[in-house]
Amino acid sequence: MLSTSPDTTAEITLANWTRVVEVSALQEMLTVASRPEILSFALGLPAPEFFPTELYAEAVAHVLATDPAALQYGPPFLPLKRHIVALMKQRGVSCTEEQIFLTTGAQQGMNLLTHLLLDAGGRILTEELTYTGFQQVVESFEAEILTVKTDLDSGLDVDAVESVLADGMRPAFIYTVTDGHNPLGVSMSPAKRARLVELARRYQTPIVEDDAYGFLHYEDSPTPPLRALDEQWVFYVGSFSKILAPSLRVGWIVVPEALMSKLSILKEASDINTATLAQRSISAYLDRGLLDSHLAELRRQYRVRRDQMLCALREHFPHDAHWRTPTNGVFIWVEFTSELDMNKLLQAAIAEERIAFVPGQAFYVRGARHSQRAAMRLNFSNCSAERIEDGITRLARLISRA
Amino acid sequence: MLSTSPDTTAEITLANWTRVVEVSALQEMLTVASRPEILSFALGLPAPEFFPTELYAEAVAHVLATDPAALQYGPPFLPLKRHIVALMKQRGVSCTEEQIFLTTGAQQGMNLLTHLLLDAGGRILTEELTYTGFQQVVESFEAEILTVKTDLDSGLDVDAVESVLADGMRPAFIYTVTDGHNPLGVSMSPAKRARLVELARRYQTPIVEDDAYGFLHYEDSPTPPLRALDEQWVFYVGSFSKILAPSLRVGWIVVPEALMSKLSILKEASDINTATLAQRSISAYLDRGLLDSHLAELRRQYRVRRDQMLCALREHFPHDAHWRTPTNGVFIWVEFTSELDMNKLLQAAIAEERIAFVPGQAFYVRGARHSQRAAMRLNFSNCSAERIEDGITRLARLISRA
Repeated sequence: MLSTSPDTTAEITLANWTRVVEVSALQEMLTVASRPEILSFALGLPAPEFFPTELYAEAVAHVLATDPAALQYGPPFLPLKRHIVALMKQRGVSCTEEQIFLTTGAQQGMNLLTHLLLDAGGRILTEELTYTGFQQVVESFEAEILTVKTDLDSGLDVDAVESVLADGMRPAFIYTVTDGHNPLGVSMSPAKRARLVELARRYQTPIVEDDAYGFLHYEDSPTPPLRALDEQWVFYVGSFSKILAPSLRVGWIVVPEALMSKLSILKEASDINTATLAQRSISAYLDRGLLDSHLAELRRQYRVRRDQMLCALREHFPHDAHWRTPTNGVFIWVEFTSELDMNKLLQAAIAEERIAFVPGQAFYVRGARHSQRAAMRLNFSNCSAERIEDGITRLARLISRA
Repeated sequence: MLSTSPDTTAEITLANWTRVVEVSALQEMLTVASRPEILSFALGLPAPEFFPTELYAEAVAHVLATDPAALQYGPPFLPLKRHIVALMKQRGVSCTEEQIFLTTGAQQGMNLLTHLLLDAGGRILTEELTYTGFQQVVESFEAEILTVKTDLDSGLDVDAVESVLADGMRPAFIYTVTDGHNPLGVSMSPAKRARLVELARRYQTPIVEDDAYGFLHYEDSPTPPLRALDEQWVFYVGSFSKILAPSLRVGWIVVPEALMSKLSILKEASDINTATLAQRSISAYLDRGLLDSHLAELRRQYRVRRDQMLCALREHFPHDAHWRTPTNGVFIWVEFTSELDMNKLLQAAIAEERIAFVPGQAFYVRGARHSQRAAMRLNFSNCSAERIEDGITRLARLISRA
């Protein structure tokens, strides 16, 4: 009875979005970059050597031994929400447990908010260089992405946002990464934050603020995120992926309480509930009160790696390469004024030097008008300082031969 | 700067679907039914006393101690896919690792397949009584649900499916639960399975087969699912939730290999990847080779509870109540020929007897034409035989007073 047709899906009719959206460069990179012989600057992976593996193992063991509800379906775990309220306070944000919605990582947070706010064929507004995982959410809803430019010193071009809104465009929301932008590494200036929130209020347009890297700040007094300025129009997306471990798949969003019931419909339709065992194990880990010192250590270690990469770039990269010092996150964005074929360079880097990075064009929103400079996104969190020095040296040699 | 408006979301424009879709009765029930004083026949919860908690704790500890990739992002774990291929073989299904796609539970499997196949405003075909979690996926895409009847002895009305398709209707797919239907508890007869698959082929319409309860069979030679009859047109959805534990949030779908790349786009947009730690811990648990005996024990224990509930229904329920003996799953569907207000009965049951169940009307597809008989869905997996006897006796007393 089994079908023997070799091309088994030729006749299956798929949804329209499948004709447009392709697998992202980042996803393809995940397979290449996970090969052990590759020195990867490609993905936004945290450093596994800093995962609090033993403490987390103790937390899981404790929860499984003492909590009979740990393996069952269940409502969101209130003690975890309380921990998140305290974490948000560290970011300068006041919120309540009733405004916290638990998600399967920040990615699901963006997905649920997009589904909540955007109709098929609608529009959203973001930067022309945008995290591909977010682009794919919007594209799978067959929506249009309006774009504005980003200034590498101060972030999102808020004048351009204003002129889009003043022209009468009403995007379902504005998506932005305020601190440690992906892929640009930039953080938005305090003045721009205030103006952007004011625009959101005036034009009644919500902002989805992706703060995946907010807790990874390398200066002593970080600027609070947009959510600290407005609790009605800013929907905040946070995650344990970069501060604890990605494989737990637990994140959260902070939204007005009135949105909870509609979000819970989307959540049930997506995956019923966020893994109970992960929720309770993270909460048990946080009960120990060791996250602050863990975060301080992460910041210290990543700052060393960032500085090592900046130093190696200064020493080895050609004079027409430009970058900024990121205050947050795990990426450095390098632009070249000369013409360089980045896809060719990547192929050579993998084949000849076993080094991976992501070409800048991978992050351009489809169809956005822009002057596309040769650029690359380099990650500094996932390699030791020694490997960073070695990799940047070899990459520079390859560029000089290109 | 904080907004002080009390009704903070009055002005936020939400997507159109939010005007139609309400929180499901099951989700509301999750809060009521999780109160410790409630004797709940309401949800499809597995029995926590049979979770392999200690063995799973050992598996997690082993993985965290030995596998440096366990807390990182990562591609799907191949050894887990191999275990799933072996499990599918037990269900009478031949498939390969390349046809297995890992998901955050069966719910995400349905969600991704719906997103893959259905355009906004499109149509799907299912039974008029359908699992609410699936209805909410479709409704949040603003799609139309066409329905046919279900025969409580042999399942889906395949004649009605044929006449819908012969009339020229082309639903994006047919959704069905072949074994242990939720909420009806029914399983499809072998003859209907063969005819349904033949219709799918003839009319080139995929079937999404939700097999969440397939492994919980109470007869010795279960009929294989639809996927055993066709690998091109049947997309199979499976899960570890009911056979290991729901809180792990790991499931799988079996689809033609050609669909993998588009599914991986949706997966990345949904939650990047299924929790690596859960994937590897389940795989480590399965490595021990103890799932078969665990499943045999689960079937034995749930069969005892099913039989206890059937016995108590026969003894105590009124003569106008009707039900079948389910061969699979965790539900008994009880219909009444007399008129009974089920919502009133539920309120009284919770208030006076602290017993919960789900009224049958909660499962009717919105807008489906049907003669709505008074009915209730009773779960038998989550209570001991003693509590089942006690609860059914008290519920019967309440009905006799209604």
